[in-house]
Amino acid sequence: MATRGQVITCKAAVAWEPNKPLVIEDVQVAPPQAGEVRIQILYSALCHTDAYTWSGKDPEGLFPCILGHEAAGIVESVGEGVTEVQPGDHVIPCYQAECRECKFCKSGKTNLCGKVRSATGAGVMMADRKSRFSVNGKSIYHFMGTSTFSQYTVVHDVSVAKIDPKAPLDKVCLLGCGVPTGLGAVWNTAKVESGSIVAVFGLGTVGLAVAEGAKAAGASRIIGIDIDSKKFDRAKDFGVTEFVNPKDHDKPIQQVLVDQTDGGVDYSFECIGNVSVMRAALECCHKGWGTSVIVGVAASGQEVCTRPFQLVTGRVWKGTAFGGFKSRSQVPWLVEKYMKKEIKVDEYITHNLTLAEINKAFDLMHEGGCLRCVLNMHA
Amino acid sequence: MATRGQVITCKAAVAWEPNKPLVIEDVQVAPPQAGEVRIQILYSALCHTDAYTWSGKDPEGLFPCILGHEAAGIVESVGEGVTEVQPGDHVIPCYQAECRECKFCKSGKTNLCGKVRSATGAGVMMADRKSRFSVNGKSIYHFMGTSTFSQYTVVHDVSVAKIDPKAPLDKVCLLGCGVPTGLGAVWNTAKVESGSIVAVFGLGTVGLAVAEGAKAAGASRIIGIDIDSKKFDRAKDFGVTEFVNPKDHDKPIQQVLVDQTDGGVDYSFECIGNVSVMRAALECCHKGWGTSVIVGVAASGQEVCTRPFQLVTGRVWKGTAFGGFKSRSQVPWLVEKYMKKEIKVDEYITHNLTLAEINKAFDLMHEGGCLRCVLNMHA
Repeated sequence: MATRGQVITCKAAVAWEPNKPLVIEDVQVAPPQAGEVRIQILYSALCHTDAYTWSGKDPEGLFPCILGHEAAGIVESVGEGVTEVQPGDHVIPCYQAECRECKFCKSGKTNLCGKVRSATGAGVMMADRKSRFSVNGKSIYHFMGTSTFSQYTVVHDVSVAKIDPKAPLDKVCLLGCGVPTGLGAVWNTAKVESGSIVAVFGLGTVGLAVAEGAKAAGASRIIGIDIDSKKFDRAKDFGVTEFVNPKDHDKPIQQVLVDQTDGGVDYSFECIGNVSVMRAALECCHKGWGTSVIVGVAASGQEVCTRPFQLVTGRVWKGTAFGGFKSRSQVPWLVEKYMKKEIKVDEYITHNLTLAEINKAFDLMHEGGCLRCVLNMHA
Repeated sequence: MATRGQVITCKAAVAWEPNKPLVIEDVQVAPPQAGEVRIQILYSALCHTDAYTWSGKDPEGLFPCILGHEAAGIVESVGEGVTEVQPGDHVIPCYQAECRECKFCKSGKTNLCGKVRSATGAGVMMADRKSRFSVNGKSIYHFMGTSTFSQYTVVHDVSVAKIDPKAPLDKVCLLGCGVPTGLGAVWNTAKVESGSIVAVFGLGTVGLAVAEGAKAAGASRIIGIDIDSKKFDRAKDFGVTEFVNPKDHDKPIQQVLVDQTDGGVDYSFECIGNVSVMRAALECCHKGWGTSVIVGVAASGQEVCTRPFQLVTGRVWKGTAFGGFKSRSQVPWLVEKYMKKEIKVDEYITHNLTLAEINKAFDLMHEGGCLRCVLNMHA
């Protein structure tokens, strides 16, 4: 491409400071260095983690930055030594890298690759500990190693999943975060068996993906818990078989669920990020074997508590990040499953807007009716 | 036997009220009713759970009662319908029953049989919700369904493990609680693999049994943590390879361990019952896969806390009761392992006293040098 090796100037939504509207700027995107990939982002969805960092509550949030981590695009150019993708490849940037070489990747026990974490956590690239983004010479931090609210971004090569070029990018962008997180929490982290009773706390995108995963795993009952009863109708389409609104009960929700399930559920999933709900999710589990998985991300500094008796009597407390999926290896597999209509994706998209409308898109996230809003980055 | 169907009067240590010395009384022990077994207790060891209830801190503690739950003896008589043991059988009473019929037993996922729990938790027998113990007509509560600080006790038939009559009862009495709890935490609950790095918090009987179990499982490093450095020498004999005394460090112990193990241990075990240590045990685990097992019993009302990030980044929090062993099925197997010298038992016995000396035995428990004190019940 003509842009190869050149700085690209394009549009991006810059978060100049916490909790102030994002500003669409002309951003300079430097060429990829060794081990880096520059991607033209075609579609990017919004996720609550973007909103969390933007809010200023994330103590590791760095400003100014370019947010965004659930997207799809096409490789524009690659840096020295990059062999697994080339210009023109269709890709999904992955905030969770997979290098296949580090202690984590080699363990076979986790997807939490550590190779580039020290750089992505600091909003820079590994090669020179600097950003590839600038506005009129002012450096702008990267976010989660992805920064997909830009028409072009630069990521580490270990953070790029190459996918089937026939897959519609305006849909499969969702496979960069929320949907895999929910499916994987069920399939990889909890390993729900057929016939299980499952409780899902929070019926947003991740919670619905948990329900979908549980249904695919053969769960006999999938109980959705949410304080917005309007969400139940939609949740049925994703596999939720029963609905409980904690506001309809005087008893603690864990007791309500224990009563309704002859002693508790086999598996529970917290998909909100609320530490009180995390406790309820553990305590609604069946004595002897119930397993609770924390999927939601709590605000910084908050703690989960319970009586140790809950664990001594056989409950298990776990968590999951990106659903335990190994990103480069398994995101392409998820895309294939979508293409074969084995998993839903389209159904999570409730809104489509343009990059210029990104602040409106963030407002929509707080409405119960919104699951995913996909931005057309070049409209 | 001549005593069959008769009330037996024998010696027992009665806890008349919390925190007051036990009193050796002439106790009347009623004959076993349907589904019950009367056992002549020959040897009983002391465990910290006895001391905890005796202290009055256990809100479920009932007084007056006869404590004791780690013992061995010989069946004196059986009630109607009891088929699996008969008079003369050598047995270990099990505070954790195994009925093989309830939801828990049938699940295959837990050892926490629920059949007689409602009675044992209330200090009575299932058949008539009454006690079989009395002193001059005053009823005395059972404890943990075992009450082994009596020369004769009555237990439910689902709580009796029949063992090899050649096994020395003054030794294998320990297989009623502490040693299986530690071994099983490693083998059944954590499932430690060969090559693992293991941390054991608290080097009493249970902690040493954890070390022994970890060594048998092929752990590459077994780090013992205790505030009494004198315990290290003995701990080496049970498999501990390294010792850390938190008092020797300014940093939190979890950070010390993370630093010493290139990111954390693979498995940790809390064998004290201290909620702060439970947190440290979780947080010293390696990101991505470290599993922490709560073995110790915390005081009532206390809570364990951590940041959910600890779980979201792949650590797993579990607990164990009686090491996950199915009591009637597996205690005899543990006795066999002891007879084949595959597990230690003798080495945990540091003191031998008589029933009459039981208060002295409780005093000994608080000394670092004491592991298990075995009482000869008929000396």
